[in-house]
Amino acid sequence: MAGETAAQPGAAPETVLAVGSIAFDSIRTPRGAAERVLGGSATYFSLAASHFAPVRIVGVVGEDYTAEHEAVFAGRPICTRGVERAPGKCFFWAGEYEDDPNNRRTLATELNVFASFEPKLPADYRQSRVLFLGNIDPALQCRVRDECAAARLVGGDTMNFWIANKSEEVKQFLARLDLLMINDGEARQLAGEHNLHLAARRILGFGPRAVVIKRGEHGATLYVRDGDLMRYFAIGGYPLEDVCDPTGAGDSFAGGVMGYLASQGNGCERDWHEHLRQAVVYGSVLGSFACERFGIERLRTLTSEEVHRRYREFVRFAHFAAA
Amino acid sequence: MAGETAAQPGAAPETVLAVGSIAFDSIRTPRGAAERVLGGSATYFSLAASHFAPVRIVGVVGEDYTAEHEAVFAGRPICTRGVERAPGKCFFWAGEYEDDPNNRRTLATELNVFASFEPKLPADYRQSRVLFLGNIDPALQCRVRDECAAARLVGGDTMNFWIANKSEEVKQFLARLDLLMINDGEARQLAGEHNLHLAARRILGFGPRAVVIKRGEHGATLYVRDGDLMRYFAIGGYPLEDVCDPTGAGDSFAGGVMGYLASQGNGCERDWHEHLRQAVVYGSVLGSFACERFGIERLRTLTSEEVHRRYREFVRFAHFAAA
Repeated sequence: MAGETAAQPGAAPETVLAVGSIAFDSIRTPRGAAERVLGGSATYFSLAASHFAPVRIVGVVGEDYTAEHEAVFAGRPICTRGVERAPGKCFFWAGEYEDDPNNRRTLATELNVFASFEPKLPADYRQSRVLFLGNIDPALQCRVRDECAAARLVGGDTMNFWIANKSEEVKQFLARLDLLMINDGEARQLAGEHNLHLAARRILGFGPRAVVIKRGEHGATLYVRDGDLMRYFAIGGYPLEDVCDPTGAGDSFAGGVMGYLASQGNGCERDWHEHLRQAVVYGSVLGSFACERFGIERLRTLTSEEVHRRYREFVRFAHFAAA
Repeated sequence: MAGETAAQPGAAPETVLAVGSIAFDSIRTPRGAAERVLGGSATYFSLAASHFAPVRIVGVVGEDYTAEHEAVFAGRPICTRGVERAPGKCFFWAGEYEDDPNNRRTLATELNVFASFEPKLPADYRQSRVLFLGNIDPALQCRVRDECAAARLVGGDTMNFWIANKSEEVKQFLARLDLLMINDGEARQLAGEHNLHLAARRILGFGPRAVVIKRGEHGATLYVRDGDLMRYFAIGGYPLEDVCDPTGAGDSFAGGVMGYLASQGNGCERDWHEHLRQAVVYGSVLGSFACERFGIERLRTLTSEEVHRRYREFVRFAHFAAA
């Protein structure tokens, strides 16, 4: 599969190791439909993160995954040696969105090769220092975390299914995580608390040093543990007038965040909170682009210049005088 | 009733004329209950705005409004000569909030003296140059607007009832307004559009130069007409961990916005958009304080020093590096 390409110019970026799903999605939105297009959390994540740092993916695909799909990754600094090929078909999801992009109805879920997914890390992958453990069984997330003893920055995601059915494993995972990125509904469920600021405080109590709560169209908030204090950052949503397809926006957000942090190399431990703020804005940039076309269509053509231009738009949107 | 007190130090502020309700509210929230406490849109608005500029209220009260209630305004630079006393009782509202402050259930509405309210402006009030027309019948909003020929900055509010039942009058009002402040649900209803950015664009097409969409806990966004362009500003919500009572938060927000703009006198026409951004942050400050206690309890004891301190907190919450 595709080789790893060189790091970006500037600082010495770390490589990001991402574990997650590679899937086919059939999507219906008020703007149209797409049939069996390449998707999955690791796909969106790695395309987004690859604007900042090289990425290695660990996942599993079936026999319906072809050279055409592989070419999506080959065009970017994304290493797919960790993608296992298994007999059967790729994970398949079909869903439909209403006018309110938060109202998503799942029409079909076929786990296929993903049902028995056991992440297998090539030996060199285990040296990765920046890790993103996408939304998979928390027991697997913990196992991969253990295998990467050199990791110094671990980000992760989870979802309502695991929170409801494997809450102990989710908490074990959180205890070993630096940065959790979840949406508002998941944060409420995980903390058992409606108020999102209190929910964030409780989640930080489970272990992570920081939590990002993604609020869809309303933007995102960041909570960072600082001794007994909790520091706060909020950014509004990008003013997208045409939300074509929200699928993968959250994974793209996470890719922007982890990619930016990896791009700062060791530097981001100094001024951790300040780097996290910029990372959350880059996450917002990538999440907003992901919504502009069906599936990964917009991310495929996205240039790093467009990424940085939109970041500067966020700077303007958020600015107000200090006094 | 209470006399007008001197303007704040600094620039020469305009006086804000506010038309709206003065009411008694019975409120139940997950944090407790309050019975027949002083409320109403003009009450919250004027207490909030009075931290920035002198305020004149036009409204109507009944015989259950006593010297004790009047004392609330007398302690602030709020002139109540425009408050009419009528036979009968004050407007009364009873409601209950769930854990999600957006889920509010009305238990009782008794219009009482408010049913036949016809705003009567003392002669000197008609010279007011900054006007806020709170949520009343849009035909009355238009009438007051006409009576104040000298007004150079007109802000306004409306609600789902008027949008549904008097949409033509609402549009006539919008055509004569500078700044509309409504919540996200009202913006969607008014524009007939779910996407809030598109909704804002349509609303600006109805006439106002700017629209603020209040998003409750998620913050607020500002849209400003600039030729054929629409300029955008977003601020996240204040991280309130204990939302005691959201009643009046929107009116307090509007008071902070209009009060700040009035405090800038003529200056705010230059750099209109920049002043509006600061105004929206001050609105967020006042709205967040209003939620901290039942009814107007927190606003009564609020100091201007606390207001400016929280503004500086917003500066910190929103800051991130430009590159």
